[in-house]
Amino acid sequence: MLYHNLTLLTDFYELTMMNGFFHSANRDKKAVFDMFYRKNPSGNGYAIAAGLEQLADYIENLHFSEEDIDYFNSLNVFTPQFLDYLRNFSFSGDIYAVPEGTVIFPSEPIIRVTAPIMEAQLIETALLNIINHQSLIATKASRVVYAAGGDAVLEFGLRRAQGPDAGLYGARAAIIGGCAATSNTLCGRLFDVPVKGTHAHSWVMSFPDELTAFRHYAKMFPYACILLVDTYDTLKSGVPNAITVFKEMQNSGIPLSNYGVRLDSGDFAYLSKEARKMLDEAGFTDSIISASSDLNEYLIQTLKQQGAKINLWGVGTQLITSDDCPAFGGVYKIAAQENEFGEMEPKIKLSENPEKITNPGVKKVFRIYSSKTHKAKADLITLEDEEIDASSPLVLFDPNNTWKKMILQPDEFYYKELLQPVFINGKRVQKSPTVTEIKKIRQESLDSFWDEHKRLINPQIYYVDLSDKLYELKATMLCKIRG
Amino acid sequence: MLYHNLTLLTDFYELTMMNGFFHSANRDKKAVFDMFYRKNPSGNGYAIAAGLEQLADYIENLHFSEEDIDYFNSLNVFTPQFLDYLRNFSFSGDIYAVPEGTVIFPSEPIIRVTAPIMEAQLIETALLNIINHQSLIATKASRVVYAAGGDAVLEFGLRRAQGPDAGLYGARAAIIGGCAATSNTLCGRLFDVPVKGTHAHSWVMSFPDELTAFRHYAKMFPYACILLVDTYDTLKSGVPNAITVFKEMQNSGIPLSNYGVRLDSGDFAYLSKEARKMLDEAGFTDSIISASSDLNEYLIQTLKQQGAKINLWGVGTQLITSDDCPAFGGVYKIAAQENEFGEMEPKIKLSENPEKITNPGVKKVFRIYSSKTHKAKADLITLEDEEIDASSPLVLFDPNNTWKKMILQPDEFYYKELLQPVFINGKRVQKSPTVTEIKKIRQESLDSFWDEHKRLINPQIYYVDLSDKLYELKATMLCKIRG
Repeated sequence: MLYHNLTLLTDFYELTMMNGFFHSANRDKKAVFDMFYRKNPSGNGYAIAAGLEQLADYIENLHFSEEDIDYFNSLNVFTPQFLDYLRNFSFSGDIYAVPEGTVIFPSEPIIRVTAPIMEAQLIETALLNIINHQSLIATKASRVVYAAGGDAVLEFGLRRAQGPDAGLYGARAAIIGGCAATSNTLCGRLFDVPVKGTHAHSWVMSFPDELTAFRHYAKMFPYACILLVDTYDTLKSGVPNAITVFKEMQNSGIPLSNYGVRLDSGDFAYLSKEARKMLDEAGFTDSIISASSDLNEYLIQTLKQQGAKINLWGVGTQLITSDDCPAFGGVYKIAAQENEFGEMEPKIKLSENPEKITNPGVKKVFRIYSSKTHKAKADLITLEDEEIDASSPLVLFDPNNTWKKMILQPDEFYYKELLQPVFINGKRVQKSPTVTEIKKIRQESLDSFWDEHKRLINPQIYYVDLSDKLYELKATMLCKIRG
Repeated sequence: MLYHNLTLLTDFYELTMMNGFFHSANRDKKAVFDMFYRKNPSGNGYAIAAGLEQLADYIENLHFSEEDIDYFNSLNVFTPQFLDYLRNFSFSGDIYAVPEGTVIFPSEPIIRVTAPIMEAQLIETALLNIINHQSLIATKASRVVYAAGGDAVLEFGLRRAQGPDAGLYGARAAIIGGCAATSNTLCGRLFDVPVKGTHAHSWVMSFPDELTAFRHYAKMFPYACILLVDTYDTLKSGVPNAITVFKEMQNSGIPLSNYGVRLDSGDFAYLSKEARKMLDEAGFTDSIISASSDLNEYLIQTLKQQGAKINLWGVGTQLITSDDCPAFGGVYKIAAQENEFGEMEPKIKLSENPEKITNPGVKKVFRIYSSKTHKAKADLITLEDEEIDASSPLVLFDPNNTWKKMILQPDEFYYKELLQPVFINGKRVQKSPTVTEIKKIRQESLDSFWDEHKRLINPQIYYVDLSDKLYELKATMLCKIRG
């Protein structure tokens, strides 16, 4: 954790509600909240869960300092009894979550919080902030990496990120989403991921001429010598000067590897093909041609389709901000609450908009795989007391079109439960995997889906179904409230 | 500062370049870098400078820890001499900047850094990150506040912000941009700005019925009683229950003030007019009707034009992410460099794209006001050794259309210099104003511009001119390089 204390990173209404609950009969009643989202960002076919490690750090460090209490006191809004309670506050609940890197879909619980309602309420804002942000960027990165085919993608967006954290945790999420490295040094140091970068235009401009600048750079960094070639003129000056320097390195017996040029302006299709020709003719067939400057998944895809000879992509602004969709719409809704008899009573949120009606009750999520292809067939949301009977046929149906059914025989499927314990009774029970491990989880998770779900535009919709029991509960509750 | 140490929040290439400069003849040569931007975000007619306080904190705290040095060592890229130099690194240069809250325009220097090139290079990334982010959000907020006319706008975006900092510093920037308050408690505490918020749907859902939930809330917070009315049915349930509670408060002798309802779904034009009627008929003519849910400047403007009866606007996602333009394109370019004779030699960056050609030399920016209207007429970029002669006519011309001239007689204008010293020889020489003071600076700065420049769509372009001398220098340098 970089922060001293993020406890106050919460909407003020969480605190006024807490104070309200503190003086109500609900005070010690547990509630269950689900975090889920309604729509994949950028028109994607899926999203990537990310940010859980930072969420867990935040939960572990929750406490109100005396300065925080003094501040609350100065607002003349809270009761002294409540402020006393805050002095010894810590989180005592359970949190289950989908592991970072997992492919996720709309409407299924990504995180499930069970805690006294005051505690569950306090953490809403930071939970959404952290998970929404990193899942957004991991998903965007996954799109960009998909567009790049097998080429490496570097995250270059720090200078345009929405503040220091957006740069740092955005880079973390970008690596999870599949980027090979980041330019963000702090991210490299804190999360042990590869950092990359060579030089800027100012390097070239600060020497009397481009060739001198390149020579000096090559002398300093012979084993990571990617030269930026567009300061004056890419094909007339930059690439020829780079070739001169590579020849000089060769003549001095330096083994050339991890070397090449970076294009940063102009038409990348044309320039990369010309640069490739020039480099190849000079014998530098294994040199890298990298490109950066306002790239996104669509531009990469169309450049590749045009035969651009780029094999390393530096993606900045549009990745680190998820430019075309800069917010992940995760929400946090009450799903159940302990009643006076100590039973968990399901809760449902109505809306004029049917997609906004919540799924009631304490729930689990299963991912169903085909035994034959090992590809995921559907996700199934059930109530907590349900188990999948692996010895009986499994019937899946689309909750929006209930006539659409799929019956899987016992030998045709296996399953995995997605929600895993992270906190039990306020204790962190799970060590976060490293970012490199999470990146692998994402790769494996994504590999279990058909390519149809990964198309950048208009992907095939993956099924997220409800169990019979959950479907019945929802229908019954809706009928009851509506009349 | 919330962070322990942001020194590594930099693109890796800044460090490789530093190491390169360390072993070059340029090592101790000073360079001048300008931060400026090329295009106003969201099609706006101006931008608002913000983030300088956090930038200054960052500069003041710059230092490399032993852990940082160990990390660099582990990368096997840097020379031992360079790492030794980093051990005692601190910033020794000068920084001039436009005060936070000031209205700014494309192409004029917002920040000017003069320092040994290694130091100037290191700070590039964080400088851009911090200033780009806060200026973006302050500008977006200024648009939203303009659309709301005299109504108060509340910043409600923390849960959708791009990470904790984006929430915290975004809320700071939103207040600078004109928001009346934020829901972000941490922002309230750290920057002494008003925080607001009442309750969520979960509050209502956790009680047996809506009326009980409202009663409980009113009992707890009689002096800030804004009730969320759309949990079940806004007009059939929410507003009538709110009226019942307001009547009960009245009957118990509670003086009603700062009370009303919050709409969070449905058609705001229709619902607000109906709610207004119902509240007025019950005698609550001074009750507030607030609205939140996917608002932006365009929706607010069109709702007002339709006569919506909303007088308090809660704006979340689209403000805190600057949804339609999530990055402020600030850049940091070398403008001059000390030569072997200790003179500052102007530098220019070419580009195929004429707007991307930089203005060379060490520069100042003047804002020229009309003596009669006290409105700003144009900004004038000059070289550092130029002064405006207040006793002679001032000739302004458009650098893109040099035949467009404006001659101001001595009694027709006065001026203000925009760039102010923040660091001199590495020492911070300016105490940051409070956020509330900065908000006032923005208001005064914006008041000095005609409404034509503030139109949300297709605003009138404000002139940013070059002095004769700067124009000549640029033309001469371009001719020389081009041949």
